[in-house]
Amino acid sequence: MKELTNLDRLCVHTITTKPWSIEESIEQYARAGVKGITIWRDTLENRDRRLIRKKIKDAGLEVVSICRGGFFPKATAGERERAIDDNLALIDEAAEVGAPHIVLVCGAEPTISLAQSRHQIMEGISRINSYARDKGVKLAIEPLHPMYADSRSAVNTMEQANDMWEQLNSKNIGIAVDIYHLWWDPHLQDEIKRAGAADSIMAFHTCDWKNPTTDFLLDRGLMGEGIAPIMEIRSWVEDAGFKGFIEVEIFSEYHWKKDQKIFLNEVINAYRQFA
Amino acid sequence: MKELTNLDRLCVHTITTKPWSIEESIEQYARAGVKGITIWRDTLENRDRRLIRKKIKDAGLEVVSICRGGFFPKATAGERERAIDDNLALIDEAAEVGAPHIVLVCGAEPTISLAQSRHQIMEGISRINSYARDKGVKLAIEPLHPMYADSRSAVNTMEQANDMWEQLNSKNIGIAVDIYHLWWDPHLQDEIKRAGAADSIMAFHTCDWKNPTTDFLLDRGLMGEGIAPIMEIRSWVEDAGFKGFIEVEIFSEYHWKKDQKIFLNEVINAYRQFA
Repeated sequence: MKELTNLDRLCVHTITTKPWSIEESIEQYARAGVKGITIWRDTLENRDRRLIRKKIKDAGLEVVSICRGGFFPKATAGERERAIDDNLALIDEAAEVGAPHIVLVCGAEPTISLAQSRHQIMEGISRINSYARDKGVKLAIEPLHPMYADSRSAVNTMEQANDMWEQLNSKNIGIAVDIYHLWWDPHLQDEIKRAGAADSIMAFHTCDWKNPTTDFLLDRGLMGEGIAPIMEIRSWVEDAGFKGFIEVEIFSEYHWKKDQKIFLNEVINAYRQFA
Repeated sequence: MKELTNLDRLCVHTITTKPWSIEESIEQYARAGVKGITIWRDTLENRDRRLIRKKIKDAGLEVVSICRGGFFPKATAGERERAIDDNLALIDEAAEVGAPHIVLVCGAEPTISLAQSRHQIMEGISRINSYARDKGVKLAIEPLHPMYADSRSAVNTMEQANDMWEQLNSKNIGIAVDIYHLWWDPHLQDEIKRAGAADSIMAFHTCDWKNPTTDFLLDRGLMGEGIAPIMEIRSWVEDAGFKGFIEVEIFSEYHWKKDQKIFLNEVINAYRQFA
């Protein structure tokens, strides 16, 4: 496994430093030597996206992705149409801000079965994919932890993402491998290999699983704070051929309470030591 | 699927009515027409277990299981020995109270890999099994939800439990299918069929997955309060040949705050309507 001796592959997701505006994230990431930035869509609200794109470029950063699209399954056809419209709008935003791919949190509708949700996800991705391709924006399916199967994603393992990817059969689609969601899975290594052989790994997200974890959404750990086999999973992803950014994505009320400059410094130290 | 027109297959786990002592649970369950009782081990503290066994029998109840053994993986050999000793002691308790099987929450040690934890689990079960068999006590491997892979169980899917069961190769061992832990798994139906073909389904636990769930341990839902496909999973288990008790196991701070007589009545209504 390659040691992370420099920050060339470090991407920080703006949700990690949620208290900062997009402008402040760009400035601080660049100053700290971070090379990639993933944009939480909400941070673009009331912004000129082309101006943000220019600011990112001028700061020497690279846009890695925009997060998040998806949420296709819905109880009614009307809601499903609105989800499609929203994803199409996001594709425009991604193109404007220069994001090469959108991370898809696929969705799960509690009032229908998981099988139905999965069917609607496949339908949704199929419907937006040609528009995305025409705009030069790729789509990354992100399998989410099974604890989110109730309302956030009916895609909960790497195997499912690989199966979907094969059915969708488009080079414009890939998979986002996220340690937080997948570390527990006994088939993870094999399914990462499978994705590698298909050249479908589009993104790699890192953070840690804290023991105990006290909140379903907002208690992710900085690398080294928890018990996930972070380096081992990175080695699997790299052995499978992935050479892209290592993206730090941490939803954490605890870390958001800190001075975010101090926290960003902790992120960088954790990246060097534990990613 | 057979409708649950009577309470002949209803078992209540004493943790469901945690505020009650074992004696009060026995009395109230019997009065309400519940037929089976699963005993949370802690409720037997400072009790004459043979007397409890007699009370249960006299009340017309059947002991379904004692909960819980396991927790085999540990950081040191000494701790692993103590875990074995504790499981052997529990086998004695199970035999004394007349429990036909022990539910195994297999354990996961945060400081070692999941693979190592699984290895230690296999070793632990192998080591206690002959003693259990000699005492007339069976062992039920319970796969736990992946959100418990950090410190509670490295066995997180029905497939893993089936694989372990095949390796252990003992008719004294079985599997406890729990809706709460397994409902999300796309392979669940197939793996339940597989277990059915091997005649290894030893127990069936029901409750519901609430959306949202607010606590990792103590926010399980009464059947009907959540979004798990409870009846469908029961139909899979029954199609696989399981004819035993339907065991209601609800860890819930919310429900424990209620008058437990009212709650037990709600459990019975939920059993008739939604299990």
